[in-house]
Amino acid sequence: MDIRGRSFEAFLEEVKAFHGYPAPGVLLGGKMIETAYRHLPPEGIFDVLCETPKCLPDAVQLLTPCTFGNGWLTVVNVGRFALTFYEKEGGKGIRVFVDPQKLEPVPELKAWFLKLKPKQEQDTRLLLSQIREKGSEILRVQEVQVAQDLLVRKRRGLLGVCPACGEGYPLADGPRCRVCSGTVSLYR
Amino acid sequence: MDIRGRSFEAFLEEVKAFHGYPAPGVLLGGKMIETAYRHLPPEGIFDVLCETPKCLPDAVQLLTPCTFGNGWLTVVNVGRFALTFYEKEGGKGIRVFVDPQKLEPVPELKAWFLKLKPKQEQDTRLLLSQIREKGSEILRVQEVQVAQDLLVRKRRGLLGVCPACGEGYPLADGPRCRVCSGTVSLYR
Repeated sequence: MDIRGRSFEAFLEEVKAFHGYPAPGVLLGGKMIETAYRHLPPEGIFDVLCETPKCLPDAVQLLTPCTFGNGWLTVVNVGRFALTFYEKEGGKGIRVFVDPQKLEPVPELKAWFLKLKPKQEQDTRLLLSQIREKGSEILRVQEVQVAQDLLVRKRRGLLGVCPACGEGYPLADGPRCRVCSGTVSLYR
Repeated sequence: MDIRGRSFEAFLEEVKAFHGYPAPGVLLGGKMIETAYRHLPPEGIFDVLCETPKCLPDAVQLLTPCTFGNGWLTVVNVGRFALTFYEKEGGKGIRVFVDPQKLEPVPELKAWFLKLKPKQEQDTRLLLSQIREKGSEILRVQEVQVAQDLLVRKRRGLLGVCPACGEGYPLADGPRCRVCSGTVSLYR
């Protein structure tokens, strides 16, 4: 099974270049995205919701038009290795996730996914080959309806200049920016 | 001024391919990243903190080893157009931000940055040329110390299988995953 028109090996090279190393999570993400597209209508523009910030967002950014910075990829960290392609207006979508019950035939993949052994004991070559050969067989697909809250585009609204730091910030945040008001602490 | 070894035009093409269109925010981000590197020691590995999810993260992902999915890019939305390169252990960093007081000589850039006119009245050609020619002149650079909270790597800890949805999730989240416990609502 190709991944969005390229071989697994070609995708692996792209992952190395972008992500820094051939992370199992990004490679498995490639299988998930290919699976999702096979369940999506051929026409249509879809946003993506990713349920973990680990690895999976990079597969989305490499294989779809959705990036973190263009706002078409939303990441909500609930710690599940799952992603959903959905119609940005209506929220109708296809969710793909890993089913732990399907992991028995791929013990190295199971051990990695459920973190059953320390990384230094991991057989990376075997793990990547199990993802390549069996990655799509551990997945499940479901139809979902994305919650309304997630469909609303967040607009920044009017901008002002914070009287404390002198930088531009959304006036909706109050008389000062969120850093100068002490709401968020970024620096010491 | 080149952007990390490529021309502004070459970067613009990369932005189109990744982000979908030549967004002013990503292009200005390129100037900010080039400026940051000029203030960083030549050796060293730096993580990046981005103070807005809009556009800027994509410049980081295109021009540095840091991506959202590999965890070396952290986005905390405080609505300021700023980024910080910092030593991941100690937190010592270089922050680059836009200084609204420097926007007077570049009225199209000022109007875009402070959202002073509707997008359809924007002169995009002029805006991009002002970013290209003067983008680095509207920036300021400061030394910062990133807050300790942001330096701590979040580990998932042990994984379990949620008894409600049957998917893998971090056991630290409780007896059920954050979706099944109702903590976070993703789907209807």
